[in-house]
Amino acid sequence: MDSESKLPGRVVVREVGLRDGLQSIARTLPTADKRSWLRAAHAVGLREVEVGSFVPARYLPQLADTAELVAFARTLPDLCVSVLVPNLRGAEAALASGAHAMIVPLSASAAHSQANLRKTPDAVVAEIGRMRALRDASGSTTLLEGGISTAFGCTLQGAVAPAEVLRLVQALLDVGVDRISLADTVGYADPLAVRRLFAQVRELAGDRLWAAHFHDTRGLGLANVFAALQEGVARFDASLGGIGGCPHAPGASGNVATEDLAWLLRSMGIDTGLDLPALLALRAQLVRWLPDEPLHGALWRAGLPRTLAPQPEVPA
Amino acid sequence: MDSESKLPGRVVVREVGLRDGLQSIARTLPTADKRSWLRAAHAVGLREVEVGSFVPARYLPQLADTAELVAFARTLPDLCVSVLVPNLRGAEAALASGAHAMIVPLSASAAHSQANLRKTPDAVVAEIGRMRALRDASGSTTLLEGGISTAFGCTLQGAVAPAEVLRLVQALLDVGVDRISLADTVGYADPLAVRRLFAQVRELAGDRLWAAHFHDTRGLGLANVFAALQEGVARFDASLGGIGGCPHAPGASGNVATEDLAWLLRSMGIDTGLDLPALLALRAQLVRWLPDEPLHGALWRAGLPRTLAPQPEVPA
Repeated sequence: MDSESKLPGRVVVREVGLRDGLQSIARTLPTADKRSWLRAAHAVGLREVEVGSFVPARYLPQLADTAELVAFARTLPDLCVSVLVPNLRGAEAALASGAHAMIVPLSASAAHSQANLRKTPDAVVAEIGRMRALRDASGSTTLLEGGISTAFGCTLQGAVAPAEVLRLVQALLDVGVDRISLADTVGYADPLAVRRLFAQVRELAGDRLWAAHFHDTRGLGLANVFAALQEGVARFDASLGGIGGCPHAPGASGNVATEDLAWLLRSMGIDTGLDLPALLALRAQLVRWLPDEPLHGALWRAGLPRTLAPQPEVPA
Repeated sequence: MDSESKLPGRVVVREVGLRDGLQSIARTLPTADKRSWLRAAHAVGLREVEVGSFVPARYLPQLADTAELVAFARTLPDLCVSVLVPNLRGAEAALASGAHAMIVPLSASAAHSQANLRKTPDAVVAEIGRMRALRDASGSTTLLEGGISTAFGCTLQGAVAPAEVLRLVQALLDVGVDRISLADTVGYADPLAVRRLFAQVRELAGDRLWAAHFHDTRGLGLANVFAALQEGVARFDASLGGIGGCPHAPGASGNVATEDLAWLLRSMGIDTGLDLPALLALRAQLVRWLPDEPLHGALWRAGLPRTLAPQPEVPA
């Protein structure tokens, strides 16, 4: 058991269902329901939430209330409020909203970058450099996070070379991002690739290596989480009920389900501050909010096992 | 990446759907369909299959054709044919059938042992000792495998102490089993517990530690497989389409799905000899054989990724 000592004692789960999940669903969840979701997410112990995306409403009408949600989420104590921004205009909106962090996606796949943003990866890096300058000029404390997507492969391009991911990590560090995250956007990662790449990125980025974002498209989501934990990664994105798929693989399940991730961590005695029964109750509420959407995950079906000891910490 | 060197280069997947899967399904799959399944399983590259169970037909009418299936499976080249046996009478039938291996379940949970077999774990160990004597007296080469179930916890009893599992491992070795396997019968295992327990059992059993049998009840099945791989375990049970649940958790998904396990291994470059597209086609056939049964697994929805390189070995 050579890796046990590396496992973090505490892990932060970042809920991304309100952004990554809802953007892939045709219906627009009313703002009032999103506020209820945020309030409940905070109550179950979540302390980082990605609440939306500053993209033009004509592209993602589901997320048009992002500024309003940031304002509401900032009223919840000790909640780190993130938003996704695709470009400099989005960054301006994020800074104006008072979000604590803005996450900028950068495709390691050149083909995906063109298809998604009509820019090369290096053009995106340059834009992120301009966001850093904008943030500094504004005097804002909003953190700047580069989120490298398709880091393990791409539906359009196929293989993505780890060397290219590492080159982009260095480029992001050079333009001054505060944090770097890696995303397996289309479910191509495997546990060995995860261990190798995160170990290499850690060498370059040190403490600026922030979160891992895994999709469960082919069932390997939690195995990949365990692999990343063994490399000391201590922050994971997840979405309630596993909502949020890949637009290139219709019907494929999307993000790792928050409740399953919480269970994986809890089962190994890793502190998340999350109240699992309350999290399952919130998932049941999501079913009512999104009655026609297929949700994912496994824990909700079987429930918590009898061996579950009392929570080490129950959030207030 | 401290553990990579430990990962086995080749792993054997043992298909248990015909026993563990079908016994949990009310309908009886006709023998002709089971023969087709076996033939196709062999064709996709599976070389170990558990074909049934020698229990009285009044308990499990779904498996009443086990002797006939052993005879058929033995005609398929290089296929190791296993059966489950619950007691000495079952062992007699297994020896008479010519099965290559007989697997005897032994609950590490005293409560589960009583509920399932109306015997204490130690009484089962004693019975296994008598099976060894019977096998030796018969001159048969059928291997004797002790399968320790509820090794990570039990729905009835709750926690199962690792020390009790280790005690039973030693007791099984003492009565002369050829192989020992560990099963997480109800989906209570977590990756850390898997690494710890398999490492300890390896110390005791050495090469007689044989297979790991994980259920995906709460979504941790493949994460547990990855954990066991890191302890050098190189043989895993799985069932096509993830059929085979836990009778104490209705609707909960059961065994790790063969096709998802094969994908996990393939994604890490571990040789299984399995033809993945053919395995997915066989899963599609299982849907037609069991039209009303909910199947499980993730790979079938998303399909194989574009990055999949040609198979290192395509079975004939």
